[in-house]
Amino acid sequence: MKKIAVILSGCGVMDGSEIHEATLALLAIRKAGCEYAVFAPDKEQTEVVNHYTGVSVKEKRNILSESARIARGKALPLSTLNPEQFDAIVLPGGFGAAKNLSDFAFKGANYSVIPELETVLLKANELKKPVGAMCIAPVLLAKVFKGCRITVGDLSDASAAVEKNGAKHVVTTHGETVVDEKYRLVSTPGYMLDANIEQIAEGADNMIKELLKLV
Amino acid sequence: MKKIAVILSGCGVMDGSEIHEATLALLAIRKAGCEYAVFAPDKEQTEVVNHYTGVSVKEKRNILSESARIARGKALPLSTLNPEQFDAIVLPGGFGAAKNLSDFAFKGANYSVIPELETVLLKANELKKPVGAMCIAPVLLAKVFKGCRITVGDLSDASAAVEKNGAKHVVTTHGETVVDEKYRLVSTPGYMLDANIEQIAEGADNMIKELLKLV
Repeated sequence: MKKIAVILSGCGVMDGSEIHEATLALLAIRKAGCEYAVFAPDKEQTEVVNHYTGVSVKEKRNILSESARIARGKALPLSTLNPEQFDAIVLPGGFGAAKNLSDFAFKGANYSVIPELETVLLKANELKKPVGAMCIAPVLLAKVFKGCRITVGDLSDASAAVEKNGAKHVVTTHGETVVDEKYRLVSTPGYMLDANIEQIAEGADNMIKELLKLV
Repeated sequence: MKKIAVILSGCGVMDGSEIHEATLALLAIRKAGCEYAVFAPDKEQTEVVNHYTGVSVKEKRNILSESARIARGKALPLSTLNPEQFDAIVLPGGFGAAKNLSDFAFKGANYSVIPELETVLLKANELKKPVGAMCIAPVLLAKVFKGCRITVGDLSDASAAVEKNGAKHVVTTHGETVVDEKYRLVSTPGYMLDANIEQIAEGADNMIKELLKLV
């Protein structure tokens, strides 16, 4: 049974992992006959947003503990993720990718990816393990894999930023995927588009299917 | 297009709504060609549990704000839910149902359902609107609808408690539903059984299908 590592960044679209994308990625993995394990950085979130008001609040939350909500308690520190033990890696979206796994939400095109994640992604690439990313998470790939081919959906500040970093952005609509054969990357737009939850499920399924072709 | 109100109780299996059940109920609703709206009580959670350690922590979180994480910001106070405006009501599981929507987790068979929810459920019944419940949430129905027929999966403390309250408990396995024609209730065991996420999706789909037959 193939094993896929899913890297989360908290729990909630505004300050962590987008919950539908994360959950539907886990479902897609199981539907494809694979197992998953969930990882997240064991450090404080950059911010905490009240999702009812949309306002940032003075609270501290740990990325791993919050990610464990999506994983029903079974999340592990990202520092313990060894790509050798997995067939592929998946990065769901949500602002956590842009706030906790990188500083893209704050620095735009001049962003950087947290070293802990960069190390995992480079190691995965060295081992020829494919990586899938949804929604805004492909910006992480654009920084780590120079000149890669990805999608963040429509043209936007995000697509401009990844192109400024040398990546090739491909416009996509709901459920579509973009495959980079060289780096073994699969991306899908998720909620970067004004999508409904059924379209997110379709994108997750298609991403996992393409990812497994690259294993 | 039929509209279904989904009542959440926070965000995370140990102190709120079970995230997979909630997300997959929303997906099942869309897949069945219906719309959803999400509601939750606008009050403090009974407790906050660190989902990585499993330990209760000294923190305060609001049930509505946390539920809004699952709803991508679009959650409304339960006090504004008028069953007249919906075709059916759905209650996903998670300890939030037993800690925030009732005190079942603390009082066992002598539990009570919060009045705000009881009012909604009685009004729904008066209007002949069906109610679906997953996992531990059917215990809420057992208290409000005397003598109803439900499932919480296998025999357990929960099944004993609902029977003590006069409900008829039916043992079920993954994906199965129990329908109470008299009160128009549909229940499915969800994570009350040792399930995987695919089985939760199957249960959610089956629950919504049966629910729509009762509309």
